[in-house]
Amino acid sequence: MNGADTAFVLVSASLVMLMTPGLAFFYGGMVRVKSALNMLIMSFISLGIMGVLWVLYGYSLAFGPDTGGVIGNLDFIGLKGIGPESLTEEGGIPVLAFVVFQMMFAILTPALMSGALADRVKFGSWALFIALWGTVVYFPVAHWVWADGGWLAELDVIDFAGGTAVHINAGVGALAAALVVGKRIGFPKEPMRPHNLPLVVLGAALLWFGWFGFNAGSELAVDGTTANMALNTQLATGAAVLGWLVYERLRHGACTTLGAASGAVAGLVAITPSGADVNAMGALAIGVVAGLVCSWAVSLKYKLGYDDSLDVVGVHLVGGVIGTLMVGFLAVDGVGGAGQFGKQAIGAFSVMVFSFAVSWLLAKLIQVTIGFRADEDDETAGVDRAFHAETAYDFSAVGGSSRSRAGSGADRDAAQAARDKKVDA
Amino acid sequence: MNGADTAFVLVSASLVMLMTPGLAFFYGGMVRVKSALNMLIMSFISLGIMGVLWVLYGYSLAFGPDTGGVIGNLDFIGLKGIGPESLTEEGGIPVLAFVVFQMMFAILTPALMSGALADRVKFGSWALFIALWGTVVYFPVAHWVWADGGWLAELDVIDFAGGTAVHINAGVGALAAALVVGKRIGFPKEPMRPHNLPLVVLGAALLWFGWFGFNAGSELAVDGTTANMALNTQLATGAAVLGWLVYERLRHGACTTLGAASGAVAGLVAITPSGADVNAMGALAIGVVAGLVCSWAVSLKYKLGYDDSLDVVGVHLVGGVIGTLMVGFLAVDGVGGAGQFGKQAIGAFSVMVFSFAVSWLLAKLIQVTIGFRADEDDETAGVDRAFHAETAYDFSAVGGSSRSRAGSGADRDAAQAARDKKVDA
Amino acid sequence: MNGADTAFVLVSASLVMLMTPGLAFFYGGMVRVKSALNMLIMSFISLGIMGVLWVLYGYSLAFGPDTGGVIGNLDFIGLKGIGPESLTEEGGIPVLAFVVFQMMFAILTPALMSGALADRVKFGSWALFIALWGTVVYFPVAHWVWADGGWLAELDVIDFAGGTAVHINAGVGALAAALVVGKRIGFPKEPMRPHNLPLVVLGAALLWFGWFGFNAGSELAVDGTTANMALNTQLATGAAVLGWLVYERLRHGACTTLGAASGAVAGLVAITPSGADVNAMGALAIGVVAGLVCSWAVSLKYKLGYDDSLDVVGVHLVGGVIGTLMVGFLAVDGVGGAGQFGKQAIGAFSVMVFSFAVSWLLAKLIQVTIGFRADEDDETAGVDRAFHAETAYDFSAVGGSSRSRAGSGADRDAAQAARDKKVDA
Repeated sequence: MNGADTAFVLVSASLVMLMTPGLAFFYGGMVRVKSALNMLIMSFISLGIMGVLWVLYGYSLAFGPDTGGVIGNLDFIGLKGIGPESLTEEGGIPVLAFVVFQMMFAILTPALMSGALADRVKFGSWALFIALWGTVVYFPVAHWVWADGGWLAELDVIDFAGGTAVHINAGVGALAAALVVGKRIGFPKEPMRPHNLPLVVLGAALLWFGWFGFNAGSELAVDGTTANMALNTQLATGAAVLGWLVYERLRHGACTTLGAASGAVAGLVAITPSGADVNAMGALAIGVVAGLVCSWAVSLKYKLGYDDSLDVVGVHLVGGVIGTLMVGFLAVDGVGGAGQFGKQAIGAFSVMVFSFAVSWLLAKLIQVTIGFRADEDDETAGVDRAFHAETAYDFSAVGGSSRSRAGSGADRDAAQAARDKKVDA
Repeated sequence: MNGADTAFVLVSASLVMLMTPGLAFFYGGMVRVKSALNMLIMSFISLGIMGVLWVLYGYSLAFGPDTGGVIGNLDFIGLKGIGPESLTEEGGIPVLAFVVFQMMFAILTPALMSGALADRVKFGSWALFIALWGTVVYFPVAHWVWADGGWLAELDVIDFAGGTAVHINAGVGALAAALVVGKRIGFPKEPMRPHNLPLVVLGAALLWFGWFGFNAGSELAVDGTTANMALNTQLATGAAVLGWLVYERLRHGACTTLGAASGAVAGLVAITPSGADVNAMGALAIGVVAGLVCSWAVSLKYKLGYDDSLDVVGVHLVGGVIGTLMVGFLAVDGVGGAGQFGKQAIGAFSVMVFSFAVSWLLAKLIQVTIGFRADEDDETAGVDRAFHAETAYDFSAVGGSSRSRAGSGADRDAAQAARDKKVDA
Repeated sequence: MNGADTAFVLVSASLVMLMTPGLAFFYGGMVRVKSALNMLIMSFISLGIMGVLWVLYGYSLAFGPDTGGVIGNLDFIGLKGIGPESLTEEGGIPVLAFVVFQMMFAILTPALMSGALADRVKFGSWALFIALWGTVVYFPVAHWVWADGGWLAELDVIDFAGGTAVHINAGVGALAAALVVGKRIGFPKEPMRPHNLPLVVLGAALLWFGWFGFNAGSELAVDGTTANMALNTQLATGAAVLGWLVYERLRHGACTTLGAASGAVAGLVAITPSGADVNAMGALAIGVVAGLVCSWAVSLKYKLGYDDSLDVVGVHLVGGVIGTLMVGFLAVDGVGGAGQFGKQAIGAFSVMVFSFAVSWLLAKLIQVTIGFRADEDDETAGVDRAFHAETAYDFSAVGGSSRSRAGSGADRDAAQAARDKKVDA
């Protein structure tokens, strides 16, 4: 067992864990105050559901012995036969370290989709959706891309840390679900401003920080490639911030903090599949392109008429495609070229088609059975009260006891009413 | 010296450091806005006081050569004789790495108790309380549980990362102090809603993240057990989130973000003593039970009539007992069974009795001398103004200069008044 | 290649990355709400600009082969000739790991200055200022202090992690820029209270956490010195919190959370150059002195009449000088003494003079060409709206749909107006 590699993978797993709450804050700050908590818990619930499913059967489906290139078998169900002493074949790290590292990816990926469905879905239906989506979309696609025998892995598609398996996958799944669920009431006419931009920036910061584990940790070892990936992650992300802000400044006349935060995420997405195989100049190019193109792509929803509320498509799908395709040409050591580009296109395209189709079917299935979309009244009043019997903030008590008591009284009534109400999801 | 082990322990120490601010946010968001800052600084001050005491004599009392099974001697006072080149006997890591890692535990544990005393204690008295409590409760109990020669360690009680020494200890100490200090004005009739739930979730997220250092780092090395502990930490915590939310949904009709955050902490607490000695199925069971039972246990304060404001008892004491007892049966490798369960019960019970008695005495001593409880006026107006001459937020300036100036004028008066006032603690 | 050392340096780089967003929150919470976002993005933009410049030519100027003791040459421009397999001469870590670690320092240092310029500078001018300052101030000074052949390194000035190169450098640069830009409208008569103290505490917490990477990571290896530095970092920081709070309590009658957070940063600054060369008692002394002296030093701006808005001078310059000078006497292993103190004074003084002069010239150059200071109207209305077309929070929708719609309408007009307006920077 290699101690340094194991230490690095375990620390990386912790870092990737933090990305899911980071995502929660990134999304949670962007919605209106009446659905802020719902946005947070849509990510948080994935830490529970996907964590448990991963250990029960997800790890086995994704990384168990290959079955026909498309999925693992059930040999490792419930982590059967894997103990603290089990080591990976090549890496010399405990299998359990690999299990927990990959567990964090399985948790994060479905949570990414929540941004497209902000403000308007039943909480119970969302929980069911990610459980199903994890099972029939994420576990197989992770197998295709990363497992021995997975058909995209065998094709030598480059996806170092999850451009296809994570970002294209979640981006296109989010699009499908958003199309099934439909637009928010008032979209696109009514302005829906972020209620807490410092929270958005905090989310972006935690994502950025955790992404070092996501990207560099994916080497599953500590070596020159790990260092190259860490450097390129930082460089491309910084370059994407600049790219996004330059586009905004030219197009809208101002550099926004929302743009800086979004640009960071776009850069992180684009360097995810590509950063280990390019040099610094390649990373710079990928970052700048991701910043410029994604800042343009987020306006597509207004033109094409779908309501991807928090731009999962514009950032994760588009950023994932940029990174996946650009590494086809920019990969060093003689790998990059038209042939590799073609492989990358196959990888991106096949995940897009599969994930879109299955995600759409799952969302539709939920919609026509238990219902996916929240009632109009609940959406208007805010899903926080409807599904969680809470509101995000109570600053009313600041003025002292008398006002406080009045304020709390009103709040109590509302909370009581919400609790008394039959909650449908 | 083992480089990988040392790197892991040092990174883990940093992670555990972050738990104390994490706790501050977890608690700080849960109180009403008028005591939010007090809640933050009650944790923050422990970083100062306990850090300094740890180096002066705490480390020596906890991990110095054993004296009768109950406490260390003063050989290492001021870290005398320990230099950068000193290595631990077994682990092959620098002693200073162990000192800083354990320092973070000594800082966090007293801070845990602050949640039970929210809104109503004098700041200076709290500072004195944790200095005394650390000295006569934490340092000895840490010795019992973890030091060579400590009587619970010699009894082979399993407490991998602090179920008894940290969570039962702080949970029961918090109960004792809350009983001495008494209930908040208005408890339990007046609703006291969390003023900032995203801040609560942030706190839970940072606790969760830092807990990987707390739990996995406690192996003081990088090996299969470390990986097992990291995996079980994530799994049990996710399962506890689900357990808590299921209980809430069935009992109250809604899944709350406060419940998700609390469930996470309950799971983290329960897996702390147990996670290194169980397999994934054991961790799953511990997590689910912790989520279900702790979500029920937080309602006990209303039935039994004590005011454990932010549920330190329901989460840390109950969660700690769950983990400490369950590992007695669920430990693998032939360890678990009735005999081990008995040892675990002795460990839990002895820490409960000792800590409750001494904590109660210390709180009472402070109460009858300098006073522990804040004046009624200060509590009603909010301890932030009374003890810290601050209020947490000022959003008044958002509307532009004229309103801003008016708002600030009012604020200035209040701040000035608070500063002019004689502060009693 | 040493795996453990490499793992530690890469994790440390991630930790240092988080310090820049941490700084953004620390500063962002301290300003009035109308310029909170501007404060955040002033730090965030450094992640883009300085990251890109570092790779293009900064690394080469700082750590390229020495030219006359004052600057590196351009051998490594664009990281030419450095690949994943390149190792450092002594440390046995990949050069790219060193590049990304030091990159984070180059990003953080200019961002530190933003606190002195809060509320009142054009965003585009700030971006230009840090690009220039990084190039002609930071890259050379980093070379002086840390590079083989740098004149202060050759003189054996102790600056383990950046007391001179980072904190004195940024502190004095901030003073120069603040003098050129002038005071905020209303300073010092109008009260300018922090708008979000929990955000300030969050920033301090993330800085503290990340600082373990900054300080311990600067050993570029894992050994006893690394452990000593980690311990001393924690100890001195806790002691500085106590020192600051004691001063506040005696002088102003209350311990504030702003003081606790500021004390932490002061302690972190002071232990940065010194922590690897002192023992625990030395660290304790440095921490206490930093807390006491910096809490006094932040009042100097009122006496001397400069507007260092968020106390960059009082904390970073003064704290950096304290640590740099005290280690001259307190260094162990026979290093400390009058001779070393003299060298430390030379190091501190030369960086102060150089940085002040060049920073002043750069700020003046910008002021007389494109303008550094914002228009009076923009400053009064708030630079968030003026330069970023955003406001930090929108809590208006909490009351339900009708109020929400009205509130958003008003907000839309404001946002629209801001976007339509010609933005000057």
